[in-house]
Amino acid sequence: MSQTSPQHAPNAAIVSTEHTPACRVALVGFGTVGRAVAKILCDRADGLLRLTHICNRNFERKKQPWVPADVVWTDDFHTILNSDVDIVIELIGGLTPAEDLVRGALQAGKSVVTANKQLIARHGPDLLSLAAANDCRLEFGASVAGGVPVLPALRTGLNGDRLHAIAGILNGTCNYILSRIETARIPFSEALEEAQALGYAEADASEDLDGGDARAKLAILALAGLQARVSPTDIRARSIRTVDAVDFDYAAELGCTIRQISRAELKDSTLYADVGPSLVPEASPFGRVQRNLNLVLTSGEYGGDMAFLGAGAGGDPTAVAVVSDLLFVAEGLSAGRRAPRSLRLTSPNVSCDFETPWYLRLVVKDQPGIIAGLATILSAHRLNIDAVLQKPGFEKSALPFVITLEPCRDTQLQPALHEMSALPFALRPCLSLPILR
Amino acid sequence: MSQTSPQHAPNAAIVSTEHTPACRVALVGFGTVGRAVAKILCDRADGLLRLTHICNRNFERKKQPWVPADVVWTDDFHTILNSDVDIVIELIGGLTPAEDLVRGALQAGKSVVTANKQLIARHGPDLLSLAAANDCRLEFGASVAGGVPVLPALRTGLNGDRLHAIAGILNGTCNYILSRIETARIPFSEALEEAQALGYAEADASEDLDGGDARAKLAILALAGLQARVSPTDIRARSIRTVDAVDFDYAAELGCTIRQISRAELKDSTLYADVGPSLVPEASPFGRVQRNLNLVLTSGEYGGDMAFLGAGAGGDPTAVAVVSDLLFVAEGLSAGRRAPRSLRLTSPNVSCDFETPWYLRLVVKDQPGIIAGLATILSAHRLNIDAVLQKPGFEKSALPFVITLEPCRDTQLQPALHEMSALPFALRPCLSLPILR
Repeated sequence: MSQTSPQHAPNAAIVSTEHTPACRVALVGFGTVGRAVAKILCDRADGLLRLTHICNRNFERKKQPWVPADVVWTDDFHTILNSDVDIVIELIGGLTPAEDLVRGALQAGKSVVTANKQLIARHGPDLLSLAAANDCRLEFGASVAGGVPVLPALRTGLNGDRLHAIAGILNGTCNYILSRIETARIPFSEALEEAQALGYAEADASEDLDGGDARAKLAILALAGLQARVSPTDIRARSIRTVDAVDFDYAAELGCTIRQISRAELKDSTLYADVGPSLVPEASPFGRVQRNLNLVLTSGEYGGDMAFLGAGAGGDPTAVAVVSDLLFVAEGLSAGRRAPRSLRLTSPNVSCDFETPWYLRLVVKDQPGIIAGLATILSAHRLNIDAVLQKPGFEKSALPFVITLEPCRDTQLQPALHEMSALPFALRPCLSLPILR
Repeated sequence: MSQTSPQHAPNAAIVSTEHTPACRVALVGFGTVGRAVAKILCDRADGLLRLTHICNRNFERKKQPWVPADVVWTDDFHTILNSDVDIVIELIGGLTPAEDLVRGALQAGKSVVTANKQLIARHGPDLLSLAAANDCRLEFGASVAGGVPVLPALRTGLNGDRLHAIAGILNGTCNYILSRIETARIPFSEALEEAQALGYAEADASEDLDGGDARAKLAILALAGLQARVSPTDIRARSIRTVDAVDFDYAAELGCTIRQISRAELKDSTLYADVGPSLVPEASPFGRVQRNLNLVLTSGEYGGDMAFLGAGAGGDPTAVAVVSDLLFVAEGLSAGRRAPRSLRLTSPNVSCDFETPWYLRLVVKDQPGIIAGLATILSAHRLNIDAVLQKPGFEKSALPFVITLEPCRDTQLQPALHEMSALPFALRPCLSLPILR
């Protein structure tokens, strides 16, 4: 074939418009993602987007030689609110002052693109209403799963379907730690230190390990995919700190491994939601996700199951998500399209009372009558034992062993767990993990 | 939380508009996908889309009780071209008369949504130009990988990136057959008969088995993701008919399995593209795709690798893709947004000359000097042998054995293959499969 143009145009060129004035874009927050976004915007030159402002504290130290000289640098976001920019990119993170910036921009009729998961998880529905009331758009494709385009897909590829369930590996830190324990059978504490040394986990990793990060993302997925207004704090989050190498040994006996799974399922008027370590089959899509990758599965009434896998974090993948949102908004603006006029969200009851089989791991001081004692409690709560597993080679003074239960609801299980953990031979509270199939 | 509305709204409700007149939609082609699309449109009642016409031959026999009485049935698509519909859904398939319908609709200023892979692969660039010239849109998200929203993601989730490579398992029939041979070690012919009996393969499955279907899809992915104008017939397609159970035995020795892989890579001004059976690591995303699922991997300059997995065919998943496109177009129309104004496509040279390691399988009549004969030819062509594999237990009169080569270009390999296949002890042409990592 003849070669008419050797230049490889960026993807969006196929829908770009050459003769429209460029959208004026301000970037607030010039950290890792912000720099990557600015770099992409400066590399592109398709006439659709024009970076006009960068806002950051102490911006003098942040200046980059590749940023065009006519870009205005400022440390005051009010400069941007009072400017003629069309779109504000919010990459400050956290609630303060990001919320003020986003509200201010929307009230000034400027569209907003943000990667701020906490802000959207807490205030997403209100901010979407505010955007609609001010005839502008709010997009947050980068707030969940970084570069994995699951939110855009919910917006444009799966919107013809009616989704009833979303599940995902949404936290790369947890997945790094759990898949490291899986492959190296090192203690939890060692895997955490390793993740911290490699920069995959922060010094205080509580928000990741205890599920706060993942449940904020799950709330956003429920908003975008299930049209459900749910507060992240209404979603139960279980920590992965209680999981240790021995649990991977026992899980393997069951053909399973352990991952932090976030899942939400809409059934009648209840949103079932849970975040925490769960047994998943080794051969399942979840079981195969290694390192700090993210995976999201959606289940639709018509389209069935769909999976999205990719880098969940990192400056560049997240920046792609931000720029993709920017292009979406800019194309709409350039064509006179602005906000959707109405939101139809439901406000379901939120419950963690899934019905699943369970993995219970106890650490006991070995003595006669343990099984009998546990079986009596389980039987009294009408819970059926599926299997009892005891691997050889452990100290009798601190013996880990496992009971699996046939499917039952969480609310049925909890009182039994409470009683079991109080038995005199139980050295620690009983660990309970749902077994997902 | 209080429950304000138990109704689970369809996904798109979040961007639907209550106060805009509905887009008038005509459906041409009332087969499996067409019925599924009509069902979704009749189930929805969000005021954004209104099905007004259905066109099919012998429509009297096709009528369904759940189609509203005011929908016009016709067997003449000119009725639709002359009507006031805003969007035409083309689900006839094939080139004739689908091409006339689509051109007619676009020329009449009606946007078109199609699942027609042959039409888009052959005429996509022209039809996109025609749409732009007539200020309307052409969307074809259902033409590749059915319900897997890879084309929408290229449009809105990955468009901030600059993709340089796309690879996929794009043909469910081939994947069903190859993964069946893999798990059951049955002969190719038996796996094909089974697929035909189950409805996964047509009576004449040449288009699937020989790669015609997959290369049409690859051409569409290259258009949408790499902005490359490429004719499907310029892409080399290798048949899977030459692969047999013994190749899975040998592949397993190399930690691999065999899949039909379609891949395109843009490098300088050349599009490297190939469709056909390939060795992939058993533990890779490709190696794990079973049954008739589809998987698409994209590689971007900024976002790195992304994977999309899901049902590649079937009425309902494909219908979801069609309705998602419809919503995209309708939202644009209702907001006054119509066509993108320009297309920037490149017309690269197309080459199958990838550099990879190779798997060569020969079937020979055993006699002294075979390895020496082959090694002499390979050496003369400066090809380096990586390994020679010969599994025990085969008849000496028809002995399959395998040579793997270190990376070399396809053009280097072909003359050697030709000479090897002509050796007197070679019972069949040498099978050569690229080994992908």
